[in-house]
Amino acid sequence: MSAFDRIYNFQKSKNSVLCVGLDTDLNKLPVKYDRNDVISLLEFNKAIIDITNHYACAYKLNFAFYEQYGTHGFEVLKSTIDYIGDSAYIIADAKRGDIGNTSSAYAKSCFDEFGADSITVAPYMGYDSVEPFLRHKDKMTFVLALTSNPGSNDFQRLEVDGKPIYMHVIEKCSNWGDKNHLGFVVGATHPKDLAEIRDIIPEHFLLIPGIGTQGGNVEQLLKSNGKAPCMINVSRDIIYAGFGDDYLNKVQEKAIYYKDEFNKYM
Amino acid sequence: MSAFDRIYNFQKSKNSVLCVGLDTDLNKLPVKYDRNDVISLLEFNKAIIDITNHYACAYKLNFAFYEQYGTHGFEVLKSTIDYIGDSAYIIADAKRGDIGNTSSAYAKSCFDEFGADSITVAPYMGYDSVEPFLRHKDKMTFVLALTSNPGSNDFQRLEVDGKPIYMHVIEKCSNWGDKNHLGFVVGATHPKDLAEIRDIIPEHFLLIPGIGTQGGNVEQLLKSNGKAPCMINVSRDIIYAGFGDDYLNKVQEKAIYYKDEFNKYM
Repeated sequence: MSAFDRIYNFQKSKNSVLCVGLDTDLNKLPVKYDRNDVISLLEFNKAIIDITNHYACAYKLNFAFYEQYGTHGFEVLKSTIDYIGDSAYIIADAKRGDIGNTSSAYAKSCFDEFGADSITVAPYMGYDSVEPFLRHKDKMTFVLALTSNPGSNDFQRLEVDGKPIYMHVIEKCSNWGDKNHLGFVVGATHPKDLAEIRDIIPEHFLLIPGIGTQGGNVEQLLKSNGKAPCMINVSRDIIYAGFGDDYLNKVQEKAIYYKDEFNKYM
Repeated sequence: MSAFDRIYNFQKSKNSVLCVGLDTDLNKLPVKYDRNDVISLLEFNKAIIDITNHYACAYKLNFAFYEQYGTHGFEVLKSTIDYIGDSAYIIADAKRGDIGNTSSAYAKSCFDEFGADSITVAPYMGYDSVEPFLRHKDKMTFVLALTSNPGSNDFQRLEVDGKPIYMHVIEKCSNWGDKNHLGFVVGATHPKDLAEIRDIIPEHFLLIPGIGTQGGNVEQLLKSNGKAPCMINVSRDIIYAGFGDDYLNKVQEKAIYYKDEFNKYM
């Protein structure tokens, strides 16, 4: 099965394009968790996965949040991925990219060692930095195009021959793979640009972060995207929905809210 | 002491601008090592460090090569950094970069958890992805400008207002920090461009990879660089200089060769 079909199947069976971002931070855990013990990250992740799995086609694990706790953090990362298993699509949000032999090692790490289904990749170093990921044709490689953060204006929007850099990234990378294993990251904070992006790549999966804490608007976003394939990520606004004993109820409410909100416009 | 001065002191005391890249790969270890045991990576690194330390101002650890062995790989990475300690400058070649709160976590990982002196950072996501690293003013943040690989032609050389993207990266980032804690990565495979880069940033440290296996020419490189501050990295051509029982002699010979070769032109 292609990576595209694997994502699509999860979306169909769960009737959801929601991706839950596990940006798990010890300092933000509900009161019941010991914030001094890294193992709390895993216990929290398992609880979040259990309560949201019915509503989430995918989980996105932001590697930085685990790396900051060193080798113990990596153990939690691996255990979390193992725990999700085949119950949802798994995205390693690692934003890797290096010269060829090094990118090969990063691909080996994310796909073989950690067992993710997908990775986010930075395009700055060009073809030989992206190709080693694309060689894994059963995995989805999401290349950063137009990111959700304010800094996306610094370089991604510089214009070359009348077109912003992020369009050059999309057009060039589209020649390096097909929709079955190549997707792009486009932030929810740029709905107008998304419409233009969809003119160029109507069929590729987009990973769309920036809804929730980052302020992206769902209606505007999905009017621009239409019915094209996408996963919409929400991290903090779901996983930190509550801090008291009832936090899981609040997390569940938020997950259902976003799932339904996305479906309303798709 | 500023990061700039810390590097400079190592270079002065060792009379060397050589940085040895520990791109350590189980499949390439000398015959005496067990290629099936990740602990061999650490034993090999320690032997390489012992034999080259007198000639190397810095060691660059390419995170991918350790990440590909999962949590055990990260333990080796950490133990290697601990082993180098204060004997040389330590660069985490991790090419990280993400939205603000995530970059903060990557900085915490590299600097606090792994104990590196320095990190390489991808600029694509702009200011808020780079700034969290620069906040660590006692550490050197090397932003990717013009990388050594063939793919550097794909996006880094696209021209905006008559100047390539990598020049925009250098000019813009130069406003975000100063030479005491901000440097750039410029590949040895672009000596002509290096001269132009030095017109813009004569005083910033450059981390220069691409000598050795990647084919950069030392004389051309250093004629372009002049006496400006730089560290020149050699990885595979030193650490894999030999595979038999005499491999350490060959590694030492290569390290001395490069140290002297660099000094000849500086």
